[in-house]
Amino acid sequence: MGDKVETVTAAVLVIGDEILSGRTKDKNIGYIAEYLAAIGVDVREARVVPDIEDEIVAALNALRGRYDYVFTTGGIGPTHDDITADAVAKAFGVGIDEDPRVMAMMLERYKLEDLTPARRRMTRIPFGADLVENSISKAPGFRIGNVIVMAGVPSVMQVMLDGAAKTLKTGVPMVVATIEVGPIPEGRYGDALGEVAAARPGVIIGSYPSFADGKFRNQIVVRSKDAAKVAEACAAVEAMLQTIRADLKPL
Amino acid sequence: MGDKVETVTAAVLVIGDEILSGRTKDKNIGYIAEYLAAIGVDVREARVVPDIEDEIVAALNALRGRYDYVFTTGGIGPTHDDITADAVAKAFGVGIDEDPRVMAMMLERYKLEDLTPARRRMTRIPFGADLVENSISKAPGFRIGNVIVMAGVPSVMQVMLDGAAKTLKTGVPMVVATIEVGPIPEGRYGDALGEVAAARPGVIIGSYPSFADGKFRNQIVVRSKDAAKVAEACAAVEAMLQTIRADLKPL
Repeated sequence: MGDKVETVTAAVLVIGDEILSGRTKDKNIGYIAEYLAAIGVDVREARVVPDIEDEIVAALNALRGRYDYVFTTGGIGPTHDDITADAVAKAFGVGIDEDPRVMAMMLERYKLEDLTPARRRMTRIPFGADLVENSISKAPGFRIGNVIVMAGVPSVMQVMLDGAAKTLKTGVPMVVATIEVGPIPEGRYGDALGEVAAARPGVIIGSYPSFADGKFRNQIVVRSKDAAKVAEACAAVEAMLQTIRADLKPL
Repeated sequence: MGDKVETVTAAVLVIGDEILSGRTKDKNIGYIAEYLAAIGVDVREARVVPDIEDEIVAALNALRGRYDYVFTTGGIGPTHDDITADAVAKAFGVGIDEDPRVMAMMLERYKLEDLTPARRRMTRIPFGADLVENSISKAPGFRIGNVIVMAGVPSVMQVMLDGAAKTLKTGVPMVVATIEVGPIPEGRYGDALGEVAAARPGVIIGSYPSFADGKFRNQIVVRSKDAAKVAEACAAVEAMLQTIRADLKPL
């Protein structure tokens, strides 16, 4: 990991018709968000766009100007619908061609006569990009400027993220504490929790219901880059819940 | 369902810090995309934004101007971090207050003295909105203009989507066919598939690898609103694969 700075931000851009049609359920946003949070990079936004060059370029340019990093997934394979590398080159206004470094990697896996035009498509890398290693299926991702371009297949994306993470500047990770509320409904503690939160501007406090087996179950999550503030806020939340439990009567 | 028109588009806007921190893995984008595809509404974009009013307003205004419908999830509960209804009112430039229709619904579930300010927060609905029924936990979603506002808890979102779907204009659903390629690598058929696709501009053809147990497995997906075109394209893909299989030699 590189230099420590206070706050490093990122966006995730998922590229692929198959996600927007519902055929494939995205698993990359959640994985990347959790991974980056742990190393102190805060994901602030995510988008899913179709395999249409103008849409990819517009989203890339909106996000790369706004966040420290943009992580894309999808569209770097060998078929005609894999247009991410060309879209990234267009967004950066640079050329793109078969990259000799990637050709060398591909020749470790394929004989020259088996490097079909489709496979050679995967060697097209925008000028000026660094490669991101793919230990699973060779064809690499790449990084240009603050944009990291990765595969869509989750297992391949994950090894690329491992590689790319080493090159990132990272911030102070969020300290996160989760308080199990049990069966008290949100509506019973919402007002008191709002007061606890309003008094602690440096701390993010959320209340998250989930629903299973016909019952709601709530968790309160406390987050801050300052561990002492998290501890203090957790104590305040627990004290608040204790008061409400003591007062609890059947509805 | 309402009138049939050729193409109806939609975006999904997921609202919530918990998704961007990776704590909660989104399941709503995939569900909504698949549900809407089946009734002829094409999801063209999805975004995830944090619990920050300006971010929600900006995303809403970008998406609602561009697509026929916007479906939001999250941020309509009783706690201080539930700010979606206020953000939607702001995006539309309308007022917001406790809604007598929702108060009546809440009084079916709670006694008046148990309607805490937190619970009353869930009765705040932008002026001019229609309600979207919530058969699970009463507090409704709503629809204003082309924006449908739903809960974040998947089971609650799903019953709201059932209710909202009845009010939508719907298009011609995509006809989707999936061809199992088996173990032929994408790089072997990518060129031929590209030719099949290029010759059929009204048909969307994608190739999707997945990776499990150390092996890639590919599927080709053919989509069009015209069933005859899908059938013709599938036949062309199958013929192409047959040629490649006949020619297959070990690499």
